[in-house]
Amino acid sequence: MSPDTLSSEITSETIEALLNRRSIRKYADTPVTDDHVNAILGAALRAPTSSNVQAYSVVVVRDPAIKEEIAVPCGNQQHIVSCPVFLAFLADLTRIEAAFQRHGHTADNNNLEMGLVATIDAALVGMSAYVAAESLGIQGVMIGAVRNDPEKIAEILGLPNRVYAVFGMCLGFPDQAPKQKPRMPVSGIVHHDRYDADASLAVLDPYNAQLRAHYEAIGKETTADSWSDEVDAKLSAKARDGLRAALKARGFDFS
Amino acid sequence: MSPDTLSSEITSETIEALLNRRSIRKYADTPVTDDHVNAILGAALRAPTSSNVQAYSVVVVRDPAIKEEIAVPCGNQQHIVSCPVFLAFLADLTRIEAAFQRHGHTADNNNLEMGLVATIDAALVGMSAYVAAESLGIQGVMIGAVRNDPEKIAEILGLPNRVYAVFGMCLGFPDQAPKQKPRMPVSGIVHHDRYDADASLAVLDPYNAQLRAHYEAIGKETTADSWSDEVDAKLSAKARDGLRAALKARGFDFS
Repeated sequence: MSPDTLSSEITSETIEALLNRRSIRKYADTPVTDDHVNAILGAALRAPTSSNVQAYSVVVVRDPAIKEEIAVPCGNQQHIVSCPVFLAFLADLTRIEAAFQRHGHTADNNNLEMGLVATIDAALVGMSAYVAAESLGIQGVMIGAVRNDPEKIAEILGLPNRVYAVFGMCLGFPDQAPKQKPRMPVSGIVHHDRYDADASLAVLDPYNAQLRAHYEAIGKETTADSWSDEVDAKLSAKARDGLRAALKARGFDFS
Repeated sequence: MSPDTLSSEITSETIEALLNRRSIRKYADTPVTDDHVNAILGAALRAPTSSNVQAYSVVVVRDPAIKEEIAVPCGNQQHIVSCPVFLAFLADLTRIEAAFQRHGHTADNNNLEMGLVATIDAALVGMSAYVAAESLGIQGVMIGAVRNDPEKIAEILGLPNRVYAVFGMCLGFPDQAPKQKPRMPVSGIVHHDRYDADASLAVLDPYNAQLRAHYEAIGKETTADSWSDEVDAKLSAKARDGLRAALKARGFDFS
């Protein structure tokens, strides 16, 4: 076992697909059929769900006009327009709320746990859909930018109160083969029995160098401390700082 | 396409594994080797990550004493003790904080978006690990109960500030073959182009009947409105209502 990656003699179709995974933003003309989508979602909807609450829904978007509308608040990512199928994975408390109402209870002032349960439930379905798609040669990219403007996305997709889009996903047959971006050395990510805080932070400098080398190899401009600089630039000024208020307006209290 | 499930002529090893998935809480003596765990986590750590932040870590727990300690705040779930390997999937802002500090910035008062990014990142790795394991015949169950007492779990696993356990996972070769629990009819879960609020709520009564029939078939006590009653009993009184304060103490503000 090298300190950078986990190697193993053991493998499978699923494991190979994950090991070779990369985000795909350019799609071939090959259609993604309803049969493909049914296979993908039929499998994905068997993902584990917390205490069987099934606090998720999915919107399958094929309408070009709706994909164009979605792209706008998502920083105009053109692959949202060009992908054959866009999936929106939703945290959905509507059915839970209906269950509460049958007992004279309310979902008002729902708490952080309920928000996380629905968010994680949706993420598990989304990740399952992604690997199911990969197994059919259908690839794509997850779109966290649906959280840029939850109200606008809700308006476009007709989402009722107590539903928000956790992330989207562009899917299609790939028309590009980008070089895989290196991940942090596993020595900082995978711990045994107890967390090793020194090991966690020790990967920063080696990873900055690895990521810089990757960006240089693909001709992308970068800085000396590639990852640290990027993360600071993206997140230290509180990215999507209006999300709490926006999700409160969607009926998620996170309190 | 029936209104209840999505059927498709198209399939794959990955899709079949997901379609047949069920939570496994009893494990055979067959060992789960380090080679297995490396294969599983090597693949899982290629899951998508928001803007390459990689805001996750994993603790692989094999030490029986530590598994016993973890089981206690998790409602004494005995499969945590009996499973050959327990994985804790962590939302981890430590490396992001270190990147901020290099630029004179702070991760204090991190916001809801940053908390969700780390939570979702960890969930994507966890779900990927689960399907990778399934592809090797290794099955198990996700443990959301690590969120019952985040401080206690942090103490047991030695987690530093800005790290919390999103969920755990018991893994092993199965020694049981439980009947698969029905999921809600897809007519209420999968929407096309726009969300259909009526369709979403229309599945409640049919699903209550389906779930009741399932419980009756396996000899488990249930009520007339099986799902609605269960969800109301579990969640309407604000399950894990201390989570917000507990995660704030762990360095996650969710503000």
